[in-house]
Amino acid sequence: MARNLGDIARRLNGQLDGDPTVEIHGLAGLFDARAGDLSFVGEVRYAPFVARSRASALIVGPEFTTAPNASIPLIRVAKPAAAFESLLDWFRPERPASPSGISPAAFVAASASIAPTACVHAHANIGDGAVVGDATIVHAGARIGSNVRIGRQCVLHANVVLQDHVRLGDRVVIHSGTVVGCDGFGYRPGKAGLEKLEHIGTVEIGDDVEIGACVTIDRARFGRTTIGRGTKIDNLVQIAHNVQIGEHCVIAAQTGISGSTTVGDGCVFGGQAATAGHVHIGRRVTAAARAGLTKDAPDGAVMFGIYAGPVREKRREEAALRKLPDLLKRVRELEKQLGIADSGGATEDG
Amino acid sequence: MARNLGDIARRLNGQLDGDPTVEIHGLAGLFDARAGDLSFVGEVRYAPFVARSRASALIVGPEFTTAPNASIPLIRVAKPAAAFESLLDWFRPERPASPSGISPAAFVAASASIAPTACVHAHANIGDGAVVGDATIVHAGARIGSNVRIGRQCVLHANVVLQDHVRLGDRVVIHSGTVVGCDGFGYRPGKAGLEKLEHIGTVEIGDDVEIGACVTIDRARFGRTTIGRGTKIDNLVQIAHNVQIGEHCVIAAQTGISGSTTVGDGCVFGGQAATAGHVHIGRRVTAAARAGLTKDAPDGAVMFGIYAGPVREKRREEAALRKLPDLLKRVRELEKQLGIADSGGATEDG
Amino acid sequence: MARNLGDIARRLNGQLDGDPTVEIHGLAGLFDARAGDLSFVGEVRYAPFVARSRASALIVGPEFTTAPNASIPLIRVAKPAAAFESLLDWFRPERPASPSGISPAAFVAASASIAPTACVHAHANIGDGAVVGDATIVHAGARIGSNVRIGRQCVLHANVVLQDHVRLGDRVVIHSGTVVGCDGFGYRPGKAGLEKLEHIGTVEIGDDVEIGACVTIDRARFGRTTIGRGTKIDNLVQIAHNVQIGEHCVIAAQTGISGSTTVGDGCVFGGQAATAGHVHIGRRVTAAARAGLTKDAPDGAVMFGIYAGPVREKRREEAALRKLPDLLKRVRELEKQLGIADSGGATEDG
Repeated sequence: MARNLGDIARRLNGQLDGDPTVEIHGLAGLFDARAGDLSFVGEVRYAPFVARSRASALIVGPEFTTAPNASIPLIRVAKPAAAFESLLDWFRPERPASPSGISPAAFVAASASIAPTACVHAHANIGDGAVVGDATIVHAGARIGSNVRIGRQCVLHANVVLQDHVRLGDRVVIHSGTVVGCDGFGYRPGKAGLEKLEHIGTVEIGDDVEIGACVTIDRARFGRTTIGRGTKIDNLVQIAHNVQIGEHCVIAAQTGISGSTTVGDGCVFGGQAATAGHVHIGRRVTAAARAGLTKDAPDGAVMFGIYAGPVREKRREEAALRKLPDLLKRVRELEKQLGIADSGGATEDG
Repeated sequence: MARNLGDIARRLNGQLDGDPTVEIHGLAGLFDARAGDLSFVGEVRYAPFVARSRASALIVGPEFTTAPNASIPLIRVAKPAAAFESLLDWFRPERPASPSGISPAAFVAASASIAPTACVHAHANIGDGAVVGDATIVHAGARIGSNVRIGRQCVLHANVVLQDHVRLGDRVVIHSGTVVGCDGFGYRPGKAGLEKLEHIGTVEIGDDVEIGACVTIDRARFGRTTIGRGTKIDNLVQIAHNVQIGEHCVIAAQTGISGSTTVGDGCVFGGQAATAGHVHIGRRVTAAARAGLTKDAPDGAVMFGIYAGPVREKRREEAALRKLPDLLKRVRELEKQLGIADSGGATEDG
Repeated sequence: MARNLGDIARRLNGQLDGDPTVEIHGLAGLFDARAGDLSFVGEVRYAPFVARSRASALIVGPEFTTAPNASIPLIRVAKPAAAFESLLDWFRPERPASPSGISPAAFVAASASIAPTACVHAHANIGDGAVVGDATIVHAGARIGSNVRIGRQCVLHANVVLQDHVRLGDRVVIHSGTVVGCDGFGYRPGKAGLEKLEHIGTVEIGDDVEIGACVTIDRARFGRTTIGRGTKIDNLVQIAHNVQIGEHCVIAAQTGISGSTTVGDGCVFGGQAATAGHVHIGRRVTAAARAGLTKDAPDGAVMFGIYAGPVREKRREEAALRKLPDLLKRVRELEKQLGIADSGGATEDG
């Protein structure tokens, strides 16, 4: 899969400063590049890191300069990042095509319906009455529960679990280890301890949704937990029972959405964010990383903070907090000037 | 599985305002209901959302009124939420009964002992000397390590992993992707780097415990990590080595309990909460969502805050923090009145 | 596996106060010990808990004293904790040796290369062109993608997933449910919604790395996500695409490292910590539990706080925050003395 620098420079319509026969085996960032890798300098502020990079060549902008003694070959182009990205396809490792058909080492219930163009790999397990659409791939060890319905061109990676009755649209991608349709977390006090609330609902996932690895999405107590069309969910996210996520949302890793909360279309959640249960988040709301949305949020709100509020307000609080130790001293000074005795609580100031 | 409104109203002893032949296919909440669903209005504050609901009919209280032109059929009862809940069983989708016996596509070690009424599904894997009790179900892809002991009427969902020597009581339910009995996280500095501390202990889980999906429970360094009878654990929770969780606790999603910590009976943890290691949490302690319990907590304590304290105290701090930007201004004003020069640290106030 | 107290005392060169024929079946901590267990009192502050322990015997230091009426047998040694630890090996339950060879119930692609001394268990699944080194064990239900390379003496626990092209060094241990090499979380706005950024890179994991259960490590967009030699990662950790983790780091449970961040050698992250994306963490940096590293951190920094800063500074802020409700009152008092009207914002003080 090696390409030489001359060919690459021609493909990019770039100007090569260096040996055109140098062979490039892969693409990498400045920090992780190794011998044989081609990298790029997308912004001037990264230029100081070039000396430490082990890349064999760099794509750079017109204005880029190296130390006089630097010998690393350069390809000069107008837009280095875009040029680099245009090479991704050329360097992509070949992926073996998934053959269509059902592996003899898979287990498929007699009453399941698998499209002839679908692919079911070894040790996958498909329950009674399940329907798998055209060109969908079910990887090794995935479990598709009974009466699950999966659309076309979906990819269920190894060891994904879809529990009974879950429904997926078309072109849904679910990464390994993710569990969709486990019971919601609901109990009520009983005589002998907590009694389980039965969860008879299900989960419905819209077209073009992608869900990361080790995500958990609980089935509804009744009705359905829904993930809207085009929404993207990162790894290790928790979506509780009866949650309604809108369309085209982006939810970063380790976020938790509590039960019965609704999230409007186009919302963005940073990593390790969370919502309380039964709150209503409007459309196009941004929750910063770690924001904790304990109340309803209106359309377009930008929320920040562990017990989140509007970003402007919360950032002011955060900035003020940094001045608090100093403020304690200042108030003590004022009290002294006015002859007020220092209160006990202040003795450890600073 | 469709029921008509007339039959439903009769079953509920309710008064039907609408067409008794309307067919209902499922139950759902106001927000996620679709055509064919029956929903309910449990509290007056939800009434404004009725206009936006797509439910085909509603169960409502005696005092409920809709807009004059509304045409949605209503069933009036004294207690709408309870009436709705009483229908769950009637609408529950049929679950295929688990047949007893061992799937020919399962792998069961010759020395394992499986009760004749137990069910072991395809691609489940049961190790040497493991014991599986009466009417217990081991779903597809679950791995039961060697010498594991599982009681009666347990359910191990698809792809659960129980490592060697783990013990489960009766009626324990473990959801998919959960791993019980992995090694604890312990190392000591050695000559060539960190050396692993061997974990020769195990995990014991009491009767009637339910554990969510993608939960990790580490085995003890020695002795046992224990989860007490009747405790319920949500998805993506981490329980470290040598932790002792009491009976009838409730631990919400994404919480982490650090090594060697003990948690008394009847404690409740909100989502994304945590404890430090080696702390002792009393009985009936409540940890709010995201509470970080860094110290011991006495029986009955209600803990709040990232570095948690008693809820009353921490809420006062949180309220005070919201006034801090204003306080900075007020102190500057006082300093001005007293002729004290503004300190450098205050120049960015507000 | 029972040993009697006389034998144990002799092995430890300890002095036995009690019946040498008492049989010991296991080792346990003071809090979780049961009848038949031997425990120890490592520090004097644990002595008060002895009365509540159910251990059958204790290893104690020379100065240890019990209540006069206590009848628990004691073994006195100079260093109780070390003596107790020296017994771990003796009491370790036997683990069945992994036979070498490929289970007939495993699926191994014809083009994969499995060392003759490696062991591939039932329902494991190994893709085209994968290479598995000497004495490596692939447990039940693990999926090894195509062209993955695994070194010697590695252990891949049940249901681990390594996606295509991932590379592991020697002696790497990965616990159950962990997914290495899933796609990074990257999209760009397109006409019909978010468009997926292809991730053509991979993940490389150095020698002697250990990774806990249900961890997710994303493949690089290009180049490689790397985990340096000797690093240890706890359960439920998220490592995003293009992250570079150095050597001999320790990353506790539920931590998240965001995309393209670099972490130097010898760093330590407490539980539920996090970094922002594209930040550079130096060598030997300590991030306290829950620390959120939003900016670059220099070598040796000790970082603390949700939006983390140097520990000294952040602890002062935290301490000051506890005095804030009192400070509000003090400022109101000052204002009163100077005849300044109380501002509206202060009316809810305390």
